[in-house]
Amino acid sequence: MPEDLQHLVELVAERIRAFPAAAAPRRVQRPLPTNPREIAPFIDHTLLRADATAAEVETLCAEAARHGFATVCVNGSQVERAARALAGSEVKPIAVVGFPLGAMTPEAKAFETADAVRRGAREIDMVVHVGALKSRDYATVHRDIAAVVAAARPWPVKVILETSLLDDEQKLLACALSKAAGAAFVKTSTGFGGGGATEADVALLRRAVGDDLGVKASGGVRTAEDAMRMLRAGADRIGASASVAIVEGTLPEGGGY
Amino acid sequence: MPEDLQHLVELVAERIRAFPAAAAPRRVQRPLPTNPREIAPFIDHTLLRADATAAEVETLCAEAARHGFATVCVNGSQVERAARALAGSEVKPIAVVGFPLGAMTPEAKAFETADAVRRGAREIDMVVHVGALKSRDYATVHRDIAAVVAAARPWPVKVILETSLLDDEQKLLACALSKAAGAAFVKTSTGFGGGGATEADVALLRRAVGDDLGVKASGGVRTAEDAMRMLRAGADRIGASASVAIVEGTLPEGGGY
Repeated sequence: MPEDLQHLVELVAERIRAFPAAAAPRRVQRPLPTNPREIAPFIDHTLLRADATAAEVETLCAEAARHGFATVCVNGSQVERAARALAGSEVKPIAVVGFPLGAMTPEAKAFETADAVRRGAREIDMVVHVGALKSRDYATVHRDIAAVVAAARPWPVKVILETSLLDDEQKLLACALSKAAGAAFVKTSTGFGGGGATEADVALLRRAVGDDLGVKASGGVRTAEDAMRMLRAGADRIGASASVAIVEGTLPEGGGY
Repeated sequence: MPEDLQHLVELVAERIRAFPAAAAPRRVQRPLPTNPREIAPFIDHTLLRADATAAEVETLCAEAARHGFATVCVNGSQVERAARALAGSEVKPIAVVGFPLGAMTPEAKAFETADAVRRGAREIDMVVHVGALKSRDYATVHRDIAAVVAAARPWPVKVILETSLLDDEQKLLACALSKAAGAAFVKTSTGFGGGGATEADVALLRRAVGDDLGVKASGGVRTAEDAMRMLRAGADRIGASASVAIVEGTLPEGGGY
């Protein structure tokens, strides 16, 4: 691990005890939505089930274009189809990489990334190497992210931390390593790991990365209210498969947003 | 899809209605175990959790060598460590590929396979492209398996069907395509897909592949009794993480084995 990175990791570890539980500074790229329809540009419209069919991917893309979602998020083998279906729209295709376990080699993740970009992916959502993080092998965690960032260039990379498997210290270390390795976003969950986004985790990630990186809340975000809670906690992107229900839903009365 | 393959797929589809529910012909590579210890050489000792640490992989390998399991089955990033830990033993390292969703491109799966073999994998357990199978895109299913078989050569490839996502017709078609593409085994489950091995599925897979391919039962096999049921149904390999408990367990009385 490079010395400056080692230093950064130690610094983060040291600061954990003193870490203020105060309100997270919120990075606002655009005004918070005032109604469900306005949530659309924050949404990565997602279909990652193993048994997703070609027809379902087509539907996903049509929905994204109709409602003005930011992106569609699909598995590698569906990227080419999504890119074709989205041609001429503003919606971008995301490919997931090392998904959902994150336990492939950096080389395999980098290849998968380059392959996805070649097929039209314009963002990459990769899974962090959870096992290396838990083994305190930060050099591998960093190298793994950096390899994907290099292969994705110039397109942005999100690092999925799978927060349900991590304690707060591990979440902070993963944020530091993601930032050091050139990622554009940190992201809470795969949706396959037995847990999803929480407001507490979104706020923690936002505090850890500051305003330089995005924070994506994903896993279990199913209603307009869920999405608004995540945006208020500090998220600037929402991963959801119930996206149409979200933008067609109603926000609770008196919410003031 | 090559014409002979198209023909094969149609033949299988046609025969499904008439398919006899009779007892499966059982391929016996070695006599069935008469006590739990004798189950050991049928077992792929498995650790695929996203948060598996380096220390846990070392323990897995030590257990496999001590008990005489056939292999250890790990994620790609752990293969090198497993191969090193198993050097000098008879136990072989398996790498999983496209795991657990099977939704990567054939190119990415082939790269992941070659990378794993280079690091010491001596068997490959890949996940079938479930979405393509469900879309009746049999050419993609076949190409996907064939790409991995070519990249793994000369080492054997198992095709994980994720039976809980398939109906019986889809299971049979996947068996035909696996056999046509040069796989060595079909395998029931990833253990991550919400279902596991059943006796009915093992028997169905055995009937479909005959004696030419192996059948691996995986997912939810936790006791010596579970393992024996799978072997009697036609399996000749068992995937398990509770392998030590299996070989140290006791078989039910009066079982006659």
